Amino acid sequence: MDKTIVLVKLAEEGAIGEEKPISLRELARKLDTSPQTIFRVLERLENEGMIIRKVRGRRTYIELTEKAVSFLEELYDTLGKALYGGFLVGEVISGLGEGAYYVQIYRERIREYLGFDPYPGTLNVRLLFPRTVFDALYKVKPVLIPGFVKNGRTFGDVKAYRIRIDGLESAIVIPSRTVHPANVAEIIAPVKIREKLGLKDGDRVKITIV
Amino acid sequence: MDKTIVLVKLAEEGAIGEEKPISLRELARKLDTSPQTIFRVLERLENEGMIIRKVRGRRTYIELTEKAVSFLEELYDTLGKALYGGFLVGEVISGLGEGAYYVQIYRERIREYLGFDPYPGTLNVRLLFPRTVFDALYKVKPVLIPGFVKNGRTFGDVKAYRIRIDGLESAIVIPSRTVHPANVAEIIAPVKIREKLGLKDGDRVKITIV
Repeated sequence: MDKTIVLVKLAEEGAIGEEKPISLRELARKLDTSPQTIFRVLERLENEGMIIRKVRGRRTYIELTEKAVSFLEELYDTLGKALYGGFLVGEVISGLGEGAYYVQIYRERIREYLGFDPYPGTLNVRLLFPRTVFDALYKVKPVLIPGFVKNGRTFGDVKAYRIRIDGLESAIVIPSRTVHPANVAEIIAPVKIREKLGLKDGDRVKITIV
Repeated sequence: MDKTIVLVKLAEEGAIGEEKPISLRELARKLDTSPQTIFRVLERLENEGMIIRKVRGRRTYIELTEKAVSFLEELYDTLGKALYGGFLVGEVISGLGEGAYYVQIYRERIREYLGFDPYPGTLNVRLLFPRTVFDALYKVKPVLIPGFVKNGRTFGDVKAYRIRIDGLESAIVIPSRTVHPANVAEIIAPVKIREKLGLKDGDRVKITIV
Protein backbone atom coordinates (compact mmCIF):
# COMPACT_ATOMS: atom_id res chain seq x y z
CA MET A 1 0.00 0.00 0.00
CA ASP A 2 1.36 3.37 -1.06
CA LYS A 3 2.17 5.82 1.70
CA THR A 4 0.97 8.61 -0.59
CA ILE A 5 -2.44 7.03 -1.02
CA VAL A 6 -2.82 6.64 2.75
CA LEU A 7 -1.83 10.29 3.28
CA VAL A 8 -4.34 11.46 0.68
CA LYS A 9 -7.05 9.36 2.33
CA LEU A 10 -6.24 10.81 5.76
CA ALA A 11 -6.44 14.33 4.29
CA GLU A 12 -9.78 13.38 2.75
CA GLU A 13 -10.97 12.21 6.19
CA GLY A 14 -10.21 15.69 7.52
CA ALA A 15 -6.99 15.04 9.46
CA ILE A 16 -5.56 18.44 8.50
CA GLY A 17 -5.46 21.01 11.29
CA GLU A 18 -7.03 18.70 13.83
CA GLU A 19 -6.66 15.24 15.33
CA LYS A 20 -9.17 12.94 13.75
CA PRO A 21 -10.34 9.70 15.30
CA ILE A 22 -9.44 7.06 12.73
CA SER A 23 -10.55 3.45 12.72
CA LEU A 24 -7.82 1.25 11.24
CA ARG A 25 -10.38 -1.30 10.19
CA GLU A 26 -12.48 1.35 8.45
CA LEU A 27 -9.44 2.91 6.73
CA ALA A 28 -8.28 -0.53 5.60
CA ARG A 29 -11.70 -1.27 4.16
CA LYS A 30 -11.80 2.02 2.25
CA LEU A 31 -8.33 1.38 0.84
CA ASP A 32 -9.09 -2.24 0.08
CA THR A 33 -6.29 -3.65 2.22
CA SER A 34 -5.77 -5.18 5.67
CA PRO A 35 -5.67 -3.33 9.03
CA GLN A 36 -2.17 -4.80 9.56
CA THR A 37 -0.92 -3.20 6.35
CA ILE A 38 -2.46 0.15 7.30
CA PHE A 39 -0.85 -0.13 10.74
CA ARG A 40 2.59 -0.63 9.20
CA VAL A 41 2.15 2.27 6.77
CA LEU A 42 1.04 4.56 9.62
CA GLU A 43 4.14 3.57 11.60
CA ARG A 44 6.34 4.47 8.63
CA LEU A 45 4.52 7.78 8.14
CA GLU A 46 5.00 8.58 11.81
CA ASN A 47 8.72 7.79 11.63
CA GLU A 48 9.04 10.11 8.64
CA GLY A 49 7.37 12.95 10.53
CA MET A 50 4.32 12.98 8.26
CA ILE A 51 1.68 12.21 10.88
CA ILE A 52 1.15 12.52 14.62
CA ARG A 53 -0.58 9.51 16.18
CA LYS A 54 -2.20 9.48 19.57
CA VAL A 55 -3.96 6.57 21.20
CA ARG A 56 -6.67 7.46 23.70
CA GLY A 57 -8.54 4.52 25.14
CA ARG A 58 -9.41 2.29 22.22
CA ARG A 59 -9.26 5.06 19.63
CA THR A 60 -6.42 6.25 17.45
CA TYR A 61 -6.27 9.95 16.60
CA ILE A 62 -4.26 11.09 13.61
CA GLU A 63 -3.24 14.51 12.38
CA LEU A 64 -1.11 15.30 9.35
CA THR A 65 1.98 17.37 10.12
CA GLU A 66 2.85 20.57 8.28
CA LYS A 67 5.46 18.53 6.39
CA ALA A 68 2.73 16.21 5.14
CA VAL A 69 0.43 19.06 4.17
CA SER A 70 3.26 20.76 2.24
CA PHE A 71 3.99 17.45 0.52
CA LEU A 72 0.33 17.09 -0.55
CA GLU A 73 0.13 20.71 -1.70
CA GLU A 74 3.21 20.18 -3.85
CA LEU A 75 1.81 16.92 -5.21
CA TYR A 76 -1.38 18.75 -6.14
CA ASP A 77 0.53 21.48 -8.00
CA THR A 78 2.74 18.95 -9.79
CA LEU A 79 -0.25 16.87 -10.85
CA GLY A 80 -2.11 19.93 -12.07
CA LYS A 81 0.80 20.91 -14.28
CA ALA A 82 1.46 17.36 -15.48
CA LEU A 83 -2.20 16.71 -16.33
CA TYR A 84 -3.41 20.10 -17.49
CA GLY A 85 -0.20 21.86 -18.40
CA GLY A 86 -0.79 22.53 -22.01
CA PHE A 87 -1.55 19.47 -24.07
CA LEU A 88 -4.41 17.40 -25.43
CA VAL A 89 -4.60 13.81 -26.58
CA GLY A 90 -7.17 12.56 -29.02
CA GLU A 91 -8.18 10.37 -31.94
CA VAL A 92 -8.47 11.51 -35.52
CA ILE A 93 -12.07 11.34 -36.78
CA SER A 94 -13.80 12.38 -39.99
CA GLY A 95 -15.52 15.74 -39.98
CA LEU A 96 -18.69 16.68 -41.75
CA GLY A 97 -16.86 18.54 -44.50
CA GLU A 98 -18.24 21.81 -43.20
CA GLY A 99 -14.77 22.82 -42.06
CA ALA A 100 -13.49 23.34 -45.60
CA TYR A 101 -16.32 25.77 -46.33
CA TYR A 102 -15.64 27.91 -43.27
CA VAL A 103 -11.88 27.90 -43.69
CA GLN A 104 -12.38 29.40 -47.15
CA ILE A 105 -14.78 32.03 -45.83
CA TYR A 106 -12.33 33.05 -43.09
CA ARG A 107 -9.22 32.56 -45.21
CA GLU A 108 -8.18 36.22 -45.43
CA ARG A 109 -8.66 36.74 -41.72
CA ILE A 110 -6.76 33.58 -40.81
CA ARG A 111 -3.89 34.86 -42.95
CA GLU A 112 -4.07 38.23 -41.21
CA TYR A 113 -4.46 37.01 -37.63
CA LEU A 114 -2.55 33.72 -37.62
CA GLY A 115 -0.01 34.53 -40.31
CA PHE A 116 -0.51 31.52 -42.58
CA ASP A 117 -2.59 30.62 -45.60
CA PRO A 118 -4.79 27.75 -44.38
CA TYR A 119 -5.30 24.50 -46.22
CA PRO A 120 -9.05 24.46 -47.05
CA GLY A 121 -10.10 21.80 -44.58
CA THR A 122 -9.86 20.92 -40.90
CA LEU A 123 -8.53 17.97 -39.00
CA ASN A 124 -11.03 16.76 -36.42
CA VAL A 125 -9.72 15.19 -33.24
CA ARG A 126 -12.00 13.62 -30.66
CA LEU A 127 -10.41 14.23 -27.28
CA LEU A 128 -9.40 11.42 -24.98
CA PHE A 129 -7.77 13.80 -22.53
CA PRO A 130 -8.80 16.17 -21.11
CA ARG A 131 -12.52 15.79 -21.52
CA THR A 132 -13.15 19.03 -23.42
CA VAL A 133 -11.14 21.61 -25.33
CA PHE A 134 -12.18 24.10 -22.66
CA ASP A 135 -10.55 22.03 -19.89
CA ALA A 136 -7.29 22.26 -21.82
CA LEU A 137 -7.54 25.84 -23.00
CA TYR A 138 -9.22 27.79 -20.22
CA LYS A 139 -5.92 29.31 -19.11
CA VAL A 140 -4.65 30.06 -22.61
CA LYS A 141 -5.18 33.40 -24.29
CA PRO A 142 -6.67 32.85 -27.76
CA VAL A 143 -6.08 34.84 -30.90
CA LEU A 144 -9.43 36.44 -31.58
CA ILE A 145 -10.41 36.43 -35.24
CA PRO A 146 -13.24 38.96 -35.42
CA GLY A 147 -16.48 38.16 -37.19
CA PHE A 148 -17.87 39.99 -40.19
CA VAL A 149 -20.89 40.32 -42.44
CA LYS A 150 -20.79 39.02 -46.01
CA ASN A 151 -23.66 39.11 -48.50
CA GLY A 152 -26.03 39.93 -45.65
CA ARG A 153 -24.93 36.91 -43.65
CA THR A 154 -23.18 37.21 -40.29
CA PHE A 155 -20.06 35.18 -39.59
CA GLY A 156 -19.20 35.21 -35.89
CA ASP A 157 -15.95 35.60 -33.99
CA VAL A 158 -13.57 32.67 -33.98
CA LYS A 159 -11.09 31.90 -31.23
CA ALA A 160 -7.84 30.37 -32.40
CA TYR A 161 -5.27 28.62 -30.18
CA ARG A 162 -1.80 28.07 -31.59
CA ILE A 163 -0.75 24.44 -31.22
CA ARG A 164 1.69 21.89 -32.55
CA ILE A 165 0.97 18.34 -33.71
CA ASP A 166 4.12 16.30 -34.18
CA GLY A 167 6.02 19.55 -34.54
CA LEU A 168 3.62 20.89 -37.17
CA GLU A 169 2.43 24.40 -36.39
CA SER A 170 -1.31 24.65 -36.54
CA ALA A 171 -4.27 26.05 -34.62
CA ILE A 172 -7.40 24.84 -32.89
CA VAL A 173 -10.30 27.00 -34.00
CA ILE A 174 -13.47 27.42 -31.95
CA PRO A 175 -16.29 29.43 -33.48
CA SER A 176 -18.04 31.56 -30.86
CA ARG A 177 -21.29 29.90 -31.82
CA THR A 178 -19.97 26.41 -32.21
CA VAL A 179 -22.09 23.46 -33.26
CA HIS A 180 -19.26 21.05 -32.46
CA PRO A 181 -19.38 19.16 -29.19
CA ALA A 182 -16.64 20.49 -26.89
CA ASN A 183 -14.87 17.13 -26.96
CA VAL A 184 -13.88 17.57 -30.62
CA ALA A 185 -10.98 19.85 -31.56
CA GLU A 186 -11.06 21.35 -35.06
CA ILE A 187 -7.61 22.10 -36.37
CA ILE A 188 -6.33 24.20 -39.25
CA ALA A 189 -2.81 24.40 -40.66
CA PRO A 190 -0.94 25.72 -43.70
CA VAL A 191 -0.88 22.15 -45.07
CA LYS A 192 -3.18 19.13 -45.18
CA ILE A 193 -2.36 17.67 -41.77
CA ARG A 194 -3.64 14.15 -42.53
CA GLU A 195 -1.34 13.86 -45.51
CA LYS A 196 1.67 15.58 -44.01
CA LEU A 197 1.63 13.40 -40.89
CA GLY A 198 0.23 10.27 -42.53
CA LEU A 199 -2.81 10.17 -40.24
CA LYS A 200 -5.95 8.13 -40.65
CA ASP A 201 -9.18 7.81 -38.66
CA GLY A 202 -8.56 6.30 -35.23
CA ASP A 203 -4.92 7.37 -35.03
CA ARG A 204 -3.92 8.93 -31.74
CA VAL A 205 -2.32 12.36 -31.73
CA LYS A 206 -0.83 14.53 -29.05
CA ILE A 207 -1.45 18.23 -29.38
CA THR A 208 0.84 20.68 -27.63
CA ILE A 209 -0.33 24.18 -26.88
CA VAL A 210 2.29 26.67 -28.03
CA MET B 1 9.23 3.80 -3.46
CA ASP B 2 5.55 4.64 -3.91
CA LYS B 3 3.99 3.56 -7.18
CA THR B 4 1.89 6.72 -7.10
CA ILE B 5 4.96 8.96 -6.91
CA VAL B 6 6.53 7.16 -9.88
CA LEU B 7 3.32 7.56 -11.89
CA VAL B 8 3.15 11.27 -11.09
CA LYS B 9 6.79 11.69 -12.13
CA LEU B 10 6.17 9.86 -15.42
CA ALA B 11 3.19 12.15 -16.07
CA GLU B 12 5.41 15.12 -15.28
CA GLU B 13 7.96 13.82 -17.81
CA GLY B 14 5.23 13.91 -20.44
CA ALA B 15 4.40 10.19 -20.77
CA ILE B 16 0.72 10.92 -21.36
CA GLY B 17 -0.53 10.44 -24.88
CA GLU B 18 2.87 9.42 -26.23
CA GLU B 19 5.71 7.02 -25.57
CA LYS B 20 8.48 8.87 -23.82
CA PRO B 21 12.08 7.69 -23.74
CA ILE B 22 12.85 7.28 -20.05
CA SER B 23 16.26 6.71 -18.52
CA LEU B 24 15.94 4.53 -15.41
CA ARG B 25 19.10 6.03 -13.99
CA GLU B 26 17.77 9.57 -14.51
CA LEU B 27 14.35 8.72 -13.07
CA ALA B 28 15.98 7.07 -10.05
CA ARG B 29 18.13 10.14 -9.47
CA LYS B 30 15.12 12.48 -9.63
CA LEU B 31 13.20 10.30 -7.18
CA ASP B 32 16.21 9.85 -4.92
CA THR B 33 16.28 6.06 -5.15
CA SER B 34 18.10 3.30 -7.03
CA PRO B 35 17.57 2.24 -10.67
CA GLN B 36 16.85 -1.29 -9.36
CA THR B 37 13.98 0.01 -7.23
CA ILE B 38 12.59 2.01 -10.14
CA PHE B 39 12.83 -1.08 -12.35
CA ARG B 40 10.78 -3.12 -9.88
CA VAL B 41 8.14 -0.42 -9.52
CA LEU B 42 7.83 -0.12 -13.30
CA GLU B 43 7.36 -3.88 -13.55
CA ARG B 44 4.57 -3.71 -10.98
CA LEU B 45 2.94 -0.77 -12.76
CA GLU B 46 3.08 -2.69 -16.03
CA ASN B 47 1.47 -5.78 -14.45
CA GLU B 48 -1.32 -3.57 -13.11
CA GLY B 49 -2.00 -2.14 -16.56
CA MET B 50 -0.90 1.36 -15.59
CA ILE B 51 1.95 1.74 -18.07
CA ILE B 52 3.09 0.36 -21.41
CA ARG B 53 6.81 -0.28 -21.62
CA LYS B 54 8.75 -0.79 -24.82
CA VAL B 55 12.44 -1.41 -25.15
CA ARG B 56 14.04 -0.25 -28.39
CA GLY B 57 17.78 -0.70 -28.56
CA ARG B 58 19.16 0.59 -25.28
CA ARG B 59 16.23 2.85 -24.58
CA THR B 60 13.07 2.25 -22.60
CA TYR B 61 9.91 4.01 -23.78
CA ILE B 62 7.02 4.45 -21.38
CA GLU B 63 3.46 5.62 -21.83
CA LEU B 64 0.77 5.86 -19.18
CA THR B 65 -2.38 3.90 -20.01
CA GLU B 66 -5.86 5.44 -19.89
CA LYS B 67 -6.34 3.61 -16.60
CA ALA B 68 -3.34 5.43 -15.15
CA VAL B 69 -4.46 8.81 -16.47
CA SER B 70 -7.93 8.29 -14.98
CA PHE B 71 -6.32 7.31 -11.68
CA LEU B 72 -4.23 10.51 -11.66
CA GLU B 73 -7.20 12.68 -12.62
CA GLU B 74 -9.18 11.21 -9.75
CA LEU B 75 -6.25 11.70 -7.37
CA TYR B 76 -6.07 15.34 -8.45
CA ASP B 77 -9.77 15.89 -7.78
CA THR B 78 -9.63 14.14 -4.42
CA LEU B 79 -6.60 16.14 -3.34
CA GLY B 80 -8.19 19.40 -4.42
CA LYS B 81 -11.26 18.68 -2.32
CA ALA B 82 -9.26 17.41 0.66
CA LEU B 83 -6.89 20.39 0.66
CA TYR B 84 -9.10 23.23 -0.48
CA GLY B 85 -12.56 21.93 0.26
CA GLY B 86 -13.73 24.52 2.69
CA PHE B 87 -11.52 24.95 5.71
CA LEU B 88 -8.65 27.01 7.06
CA VAL B 89 -6.12 26.31 9.77
CA GLY B 90 -4.32 29.05 11.67
CA GLU B 91 -2.90 30.43 14.87
CA VAL B 92 -4.59 32.94 17.12
CA ILE B 93 -2.71 36.26 17.22
CA SER B 94 -3.39 39.61 18.83
CA GLY B 95 -4.97 42.25 16.63
CA LEU B 96 -4.35 45.98 16.72
CA GLY B 97 -7.59 46.69 18.53
CA GLU B 98 -8.95 48.39 15.44
CA GLY B 99 -11.40 45.56 14.95
CA ALA B 100 -13.53 46.59 17.94
CA TYR B 101 -13.96 50.09 16.51
CA TYR B 102 -15.13 48.86 13.14
CA VAL B 103 -17.43 46.18 14.51
CA GLN B 104 -19.26 48.91 16.43
CA ILE B 105 -19.49 51.13 13.36
CA TYR B 106 -20.92 48.28 11.29
CA ARG B 107 -22.96 46.78 14.14
CA GLU B 108 -26.42 47.55 12.73
CA ARG B 109 -25.49 46.24 9.32
CA ILE B 110 -23.95 43.06 10.70
CA ARG B 111 -27.19 42.47 12.58
CA GLU B 112 -29.17 43.05 9.41
CA TYR B 113 -27.02 41.02 7.00
CA LEU B 114 -25.61 38.26 9.20
CA GLY B 115 -28.44 38.02 11.69
CA PHE B 116 -26.49 38.36 14.93
CA ASP B 117 -25.43 41.13 17.26
CA PRO B 118 -21.63 41.06 17.12
CA TYR B 119 -19.36 41.10 20.14
CA PRO B 120 -17.37 44.36 19.78
CA GLY B 121 -14.03 42.88 18.84
CA THR B 122 -12.49 40.48 16.36
CA LEU B 123 -10.47 37.29 16.66
CA ASN B 124 -7.37 37.43 14.48
CA VAL B 125 -6.06 34.18 13.04
CA ARG B 126 -2.81 33.98 11.11
CA LEU B 127 -3.26 31.28 8.50
CA LEU B 128 -1.06 28.23 8.33
CA PHE B 129 -3.17 26.66 5.61
CA PRO B 130 -3.97 27.68 2.96
CA ARG B 131 -1.63 30.60 2.45
CA THR B 132 -4.27 33.31 2.15
CA VAL B 133 -7.94 33.76 2.94
CA PHE B 134 -8.51 34.19 -0.78
CA ASP B 135 -7.10 30.72 -1.52
CA ALA B 136 -9.69 29.31 0.84
CA LEU B 137 -12.62 31.51 -0.08
CA TYR B 138 -12.37 32.15 -3.79
CA LYS B 139 -15.13 29.66 -4.56
CA VAL B 140 -17.42 30.79 -1.74
CA LYS B 141 -20.12 33.39 -2.22
CA PRO B 142 -19.80 36.06 0.45
CA VAL B 143 -22.54 37.99 2.17
CA LEU B 144 -21.99 41.55 0.97
CA ILE B 145 -22.44 44.15 3.70
CA PRO B 146 -22.79 47.39 1.76
CA GLY B 147 -20.80 50.46 2.73
CA PHE B 148 -22.24 53.79 3.86
CA VAL B 149 -21.37 57.38 4.66
CA LYS B 150 -21.43 58.60 8.28
CA ASN B 151 -20.53 62.10 9.46
CA GLY B 152 -19.00 62.78 6.08
CA ARG B 153 -16.74 59.72 6.27
CA THR B 154 -17.06 56.83 3.88
CA PHE B 155 -17.11 53.26 5.19
CA GLY B 156 -16.60 50.74 2.40
CA ASP B 157 -18.26 47.42 1.56
CA VAL B 158 -17.38 44.44 3.71
CA LYS B 159 -17.45 40.84 2.54
CA ALA B 160 -18.51 38.32 5.18
CA TYR B 161 -18.06 34.54 4.96
CA ARG B 162 -20.04 32.37 7.36
CA ILE B 163 -17.78 29.94 9.20
CA ARG B 164 -17.63 27.75 12.28
CA ILE B 165 -14.83 27.50 14.82
CA ASP B 166 -15.23 24.52 17.12
CA GLY B 167 -18.91 24.54 16.30
CA LEU B 168 -19.27 28.24 17.08
CA GLU B 169 -21.05 30.14 14.30
CA SER B 170 -19.10 33.18 13.27
CA ALA B 171 -17.90 35.02 10.16
CA ILE B 172 -14.68 36.05 8.49
CA VAL B 173 -14.95 39.69 7.49
CA ILE B 174 -12.85 41.24 4.75
CA PRO B 175 -13.18 44.98 4.20
CA SER B 176 -13.06 45.85 0.50
CA ARG B 177 -10.17 48.18 1.24
CA THR B 178 -8.38 45.98 3.69
CA VAL B 179 -5.16 46.94 5.45
CA HIS B 180 -4.76 43.41 6.79
CA PRO B 181 -2.34 41.09 5.03
CA ALA B 182 -4.32 38.36 3.26
CA ASN B 183 -2.80 35.69 5.52
CA VAL B 184 -4.73 36.97 8.54
CA ALA B 185 -8.42 36.12 8.96
CA GLU B 186 -10.49 38.56 11.03
CA ILE B 187 -13.44 36.90 12.67
CA ILE B 188 -16.58 38.22 14.31
CA ALA B 189 -19.19 36.33 16.35
CA PRO B 190 -22.12 36.97 18.68
CA VAL B 191 -19.79 36.21 21.63
CA LYS B 192 -16.18 36.83 22.60
CA ILE B 193 -14.60 33.90 20.81
CA ARG B 194 -11.37 33.87 22.84
CA GLU B 195 -13.32 33.52 26.07
CA LYS B 196 -15.97 31.14 24.81
CA LEU B 197 -13.40 28.71 23.37
CA GLY B 198 -10.63 29.39 25.91
CA LEU B 199 -8.17 30.48 23.23
CA LYS B 200 -4.89 32.30 23.74
CA ASP B 201 -2.22 33.62 21.37
CA GLY B 202 -0.47 30.81 19.52
CA ASP B 203 -3.35 28.34 19.82
CA ARG B 204 -4.22 26.52 16.64
CA VAL B 205 -7.77 26.65 15.35
CA LYS B 206 -9.54 24.99 12.48
CA ILE B 207 -12.11 27.10 10.69
CA THR B 208 -14.84 25.42 8.65
CA ILE B 209 -16.61 27.32 5.91
CA VAL B 210 -20.37 26.88 6.30
